[in-house]
Amino acid sequence: MQHFDAIWHNVNIASMDPQRPGSYGAVEQAVLAIRDGLIAFCGPRADLPPYDALATPTFDGQGGWLLPGFIDCHTHLVYAGNRANEFELRLNGATYQQIAESGGGIKSTVAATRAASHEELFVLGKNRLNALLAQGVTCVEIKSGYGLDLASERKILEVARLLGEHHPIAIQTTFLGAHALPPEYSGDSDGYVDLVVDSMLPELHSAGLVDAVDVFCEGIGFSVAQSRRLFDKARTLGLPVKAHAEQLSSLGGASLVAEFGGLSADHIEYLTEADVANMASAGTVAVLLPGAYYFLRETKMPPIDLLRQYQVPMAVSTDLNPGTSPLCNLPLMLNMACTLFRLTPAEALAGVTRHAAQALGLTDRGMLRTGLRADFALYQVSQPAELCYQFGVSQLRQLVIGGKVVNPG
Amino acid sequence: MQHFDAIWHNVNIASMDPQRPGSYGAVEQAVLAIRDGLIAFCGPRADLPPYDALATPTFDGQGGWLLPGFIDCHTHLVYAGNRANEFELRLNGATYQQIAESGGGIKSTVAATRAASHEELFVLGKNRLNALLAQGVTCVEIKSGYGLDLASERKILEVARLLGEHHPIAIQTTFLGAHALPPEYSGDSDGYVDLVVDSMLPELHSAGLVDAVDVFCEGIGFSVAQSRRLFDKARTLGLPVKAHAEQLSSLGGASLVAEFGGLSADHIEYLTEADVANMASAGTVAVLLPGAYYFLRETKMPPIDLLRQYQVPMAVSTDLNPGTSPLCNLPLMLNMACTLFRLTPAEALAGVTRHAAQALGLTDRGMLRTGLRADFALYQVSQPAELCYQFGVSQLRQLVIGGKVVNPG
Ligand SMILES: [Zn+2]
Ligand SMILES: [Zn+2]
Repeated sequence: MQHFDAIWHNVNIASMDPQRPGSYGAVEQAVLAIRDGLIAFCGPRADLPPYDALATPTFDGQGGWLLPGFIDCHTHLVYAGNRANEFELRLNGATYQQIAESGGGIKSTVAATRAASHEELFVLGKNRLNALLAQGVTCVEIKSGYGLDLASERKILEVARLLGEHHPIAIQTTFLGAHALPPEYSGDSDGYVDLVVDSMLPELHSAGLVDAVDVFCEGIGFSVAQSRRLFDKARTLGLPVKAHAEQLSSLGGASLVAEFGGLSADHIEYLTEADVANMASAGTVAVLLPGAYYFLRETKMPPIDLLRQYQVPMAVSTDLNPGTSPLCNLPLMLNMACTLFRLTPAEALAGVTRHAAQALGLTDRGMLRTGLRADFALYQVSQPAELCYQFGVSQLRQLVIGGKVVNPG
Repeated sequence: MQHFDAIWHNVNIASMDPQRPGSYGAVEQAVLAIRDGLIAFCGPRADLPPYDALATPTFDGQGGWLLPGFIDCHTHLVYAGNRANEFELRLNGATYQQIAESGGGIKSTVAATRAASHEELFVLGKNRLNALLAQGVTCVEIKSGYGLDLASERKILEVARLLGEHHPIAIQTTFLGAHALPPEYSGDSDGYVDLVVDSMLPELHSAGLVDAVDVFCEGIGFSVAQSRRLFDKARTLGLPVKAHAEQLSSLGGASLVAEFGGLSADHIEYLTEADVANMASAGTVAVLLPGAYYFLRETKMPPIDLLRQYQVPMAVSTDLNPGTSPLCNLPLMLNMACTLFRLTPAEALAGVTRHAAQALGLTDRGMLRTGLRADFALYQVSQPAELCYQFGVSQLRQLVIGGKVVNPG
């Protein structure tokens, strides 16, 4: 007889497992059982092996659907300050120059984040993670990039690690020192890249704070040549790479990520077919960020049809940040991915589960399959598409992370 | 000495009262006191009259902001079924004809709502109201219009009244029998209008179920002539009117509402300058519904600048409905009103408070002023614009409806 730590029955399962038929890898009238924080059984009720039912805590899913825990694979969640003032100024007709002169823009977030203590950033981050938890999110990537000096970048990544230890949501960290030029390096972009490559990245890596390396590769950010220097260093350190690429122009950042066998190219509104082919060959994930597209009122969509044609996996994420996507809500991104980018609900849901895990290089989650982490959520819906179609009334009934039932309220 | 039932101090107040200076009618370092469900004092701490402090429950706002309770002045909140299936079919490439043939569209909502019991509709409506309550909403308008026969329209309005009795949120009802042509009147639009005007409206009115009368005045809905017949009847019954108007074309519905001194014209993407002038003269509110605009991927914006120029009050609402705005979230509409329609945060917040009250003909709420209903919310924000700028992390700390502190969780 098998031993389980807990079992869920009277459920349907959207496993998101491509080894199962259908776009959701769905199993109706299913059972899911866990042991030692992992999925120990996931399949049709008829296939359930004998187990000691009287010794096993049993949850009745009341006909709802189980899905993998959602993964938010691109966030800038640890920051201080907010840009409501700048938002209001712009809507009242202020020009970008006036806003910059009033201290707005990314500089204001960098100043506030540099000035904040570990404790202040921890509380701000925890409040944002609590909101995501209540939405069924079980894993979040957090980038640095509002520190832009060694001490402040370290502080952000330390807070991200602390959040991972003290919050039920699992945290992956990404070093994004090459996010913007700090004021003290104004006019010396290469000098700042020297600092990032030669000093910040190796030090933060050796402190165990870095799971991946990111760069804002854009005309207003860093060049492809500068990004290549960063990626070369990441390679020598054995760290996977990714990039904010092709958001505002076609520069070649996504193909550079592919050349380095990187995890993901993110935003990618201006991706070319050659970039798509390179990403497909390299297994690089396309991370779609409809919240930033919405908030910036962009009109150029990512090349969804090409991504489909080349079978590039598409992830969907919040890009949570105070400047271009102050939207701490992953289910809203499901709706926006469908409404604005015309993803199907199955594609959008794969984008916050299986493909989001792939964008983080995580092979132990993102699907419901025996042997993977027991990260899953129970929804009171009659079909998975409801999670993309409607917004506002939470259908989440239970959330399990690493085998533990957590209170998402 | 004055007697108060409770008092809030250490707060800033965005009164939204145009008698106070500034676009929020703001009072910093303020105090708000209530008595008998009404606001008994609202102003600077320095002006607070003597009262028996030891006998008065006192709340410390910790420097946050008090705003009027939000009012969602245009919803179709009582319905059964959902249209996730149709949403998914369309994103998978099905044509409108295929969806209609598969039983989709408004017909499916009408069929599900007709088949649902009072109890089922009550639970569905309560879940939606609970979500709105957690967002700081204290008053909601609910339209009929998914029944389209006397018994079913009565059922919807009875459920709306029941919700008003049993839920802390205050409910206003609107009769929208002229929402769509029911299948049994296919090809006989005038015949259905006869039924609505001669039988449904007077019967439901005499049952005390109708606070206002609405019509879907559109090429695919009802004509201006048919709307006029309905409004004539409403006038004889002493009921205020409003219309879904100028959403998809310029037909004249909004000017018809103005001609009848009506409460509001809603959607109004195709409003002309003459319509705007008529609305201004009549005191008719422009109800903006950015959720439907977003969900339908419309590109024609309402004429915001003209509405400003003619000083037509602009309200903002969810239009919560299963077909074109399955978005049960009024704070999201604040963000969308600013992001998509370029309203200022002050305009958007007036749109869910003072102007939303005006769109419902309610003069006892929508502002924080002595003598008005004690419907207000405390937010942990440093400025009101934050409520429009960021989305996802709730900043609501306390909600008061009719003088009672309610638990918004
Ligand atoms: Zn980003
Ligand atoms: Zn409507």
